[in-house]
Amino acid sequence: MTPQRLQRLRATLARRQPDLSVIMDGVHKPHNIAAVVRTCDAVGVLELHAALPDNRARNTVSTALGSQRWVNVHEHHCGEDAIRHVQSLGMQVLAAHWSEHAVPYREVDYTRPTALLLGTERTGVDDISAAAADRHVIIPMMGMVSSFNVSVAAAIILAEACEQRRAAGLYQQSRLNQQQYRDTFFKWAYP
Amino acid sequence: MTPQRLQRLRATLARRQPDLSVIMDGVHKPHNIAAVVRTCDAVGVLELHAALPDNRARNTVSTALGSQRWVNVHEHHCGEDAIRHVQSLGMQVLAAHWSEHAVPYREVDYTRPTALLLGTERTGVDDISAAAADRHVIIPMMGMVSSFNVSVAAAIILAEACEQRRAAGLYQQSRLNQQQYRDTFFKWAYP
Ligand SMILES: C[S@@+](CC[C@H](N)C(=O)[O-])C[C@H]1O[C@@H](n2cnc3c(N)ncnc32)[C@H](O)[C@@H]1O
Ligand SMILES: C[S@@+](CC[C@H](N)C(=O)[O-])C[C@H]1O[C@@H](n2cnc3c(N)ncnc32)[C@H](O)[C@@H]1O
Repeated sequence: MTPQRLQRLRATLARRQPDLSVIMDGVHKPHNIAAVVRTCDAVGVLELHAALPDNRARNTVSTALGSQRWVNVHEHHCGEDAIRHVQSLGMQVLAAHWSEHAVPYREVDYTRPTALLLGTERTGVDDISAAAADRHVIIPMMGMVSSFNVSVAAAIILAEACEQRRAAGLYQQSRLNQQQYRDTFFKWAYP
Repeated sequence: MTPQRLQRLRATLARRQPDLSVIMDGVHKPHNIAAVVRTCDAVGVLELHAALPDNRARNTVSTALGSQRWVNVHEHHCGEDAIRHVQSLGMQVLAAHWSEHAVPYREVDYTRPTALLLGTERTGVDDISAAAADRHVIIPMMGMVSSFNVSVAAAIILAEACEQRRAAGLYQQSRLNQQQYRDTFFKWAYP
């Protein structure tokens, strides 16, 4: 490994956000999973949680996730398990979900410890996950079609989180504890 | 057609933005094209321009575009033709493209007549299109991977354009001229 490469790994690690997380709750198309993970890397997400779909897609999802190098992926049995897990770490869970309580995504404070939950391609967020989440957020839509592609919705909300965290200086100070830093550094440098 | 449906078509038409456009310059993967078009609908884009790739993907792209119902699609021979066309209509062309002159995407005024140009999946925006565009815009990236998926990049920038136009009241007044309104209404109501 060249000194430049090591330097780049360290600089990226120093921008990772341990308190900005994503839960993919049943997302199962490989190109959507790949796009969500790539966006997570780009905004500094350290840990990604995936609730695996309960069908044939399960293995495909698990395989697609296994190939991810820059974001730590945790698999869960269902959305509610993933939600309880991140809540126990002190994060608010924002479900990207239309409901009567939903707030526009730009009105939320993403500098707080936050996990963004995304629903499945076809049927969205189910009732159990919607009830377990702390809040619902929506991206207003001006057109005929009633939802965005899931990786697109993720990107729009995460870009706002990134902008708020940039403005708050959260990418300018290293935010990982020693253990997180060391574990992730070794995974990246010696895969 | 039910009165509710007609009402919905008219309300959506009244939010369409004739001066917010997108140019896909060689984008060729069908799922990326589909996601870009869906996002265009959601932020109110009326006209989408596609410069077709110069290879086997050409037909696939043309087919994927032909199925689009809510956004008017225009095919061009190359990126430069599409750029000259929208510039002749008075729009600034913003290429989503890394270069030394590129500005962060949140620093741009999208309430001005604007076309966003997107590059191909593998090699991005070529030199000719980069030179013909009026400005280059970038989405800052905090991670290891050096670019977003093209439909994700489109969505992040268009969501900012949408937010600025919403704040400026541009979705609250009908913005189409009679001809645009009539043509699009007939296409939507009697396909
Ligand atoms: C394709 S959508 C699911 C659509 C599904 N028919 C429904 O009614 O929920 C997949 C996921 O993308 C996210 N999403 C899509 N559009 C959204 C929007 N406008 N606001 C918030 N989240 C959105 C949500 O997490 C949703 O569960
Ligand atoms: C996958 S990228 C192309 C990457 C290519 N290797 C390059 O160097 O340009 C496809 C398109 O998405 C857009 N894009 C991706 N990430 C972007 C970013 N961070 N800022 C602006 N545009 C971006 C650009 O229009 C780009 O041409």
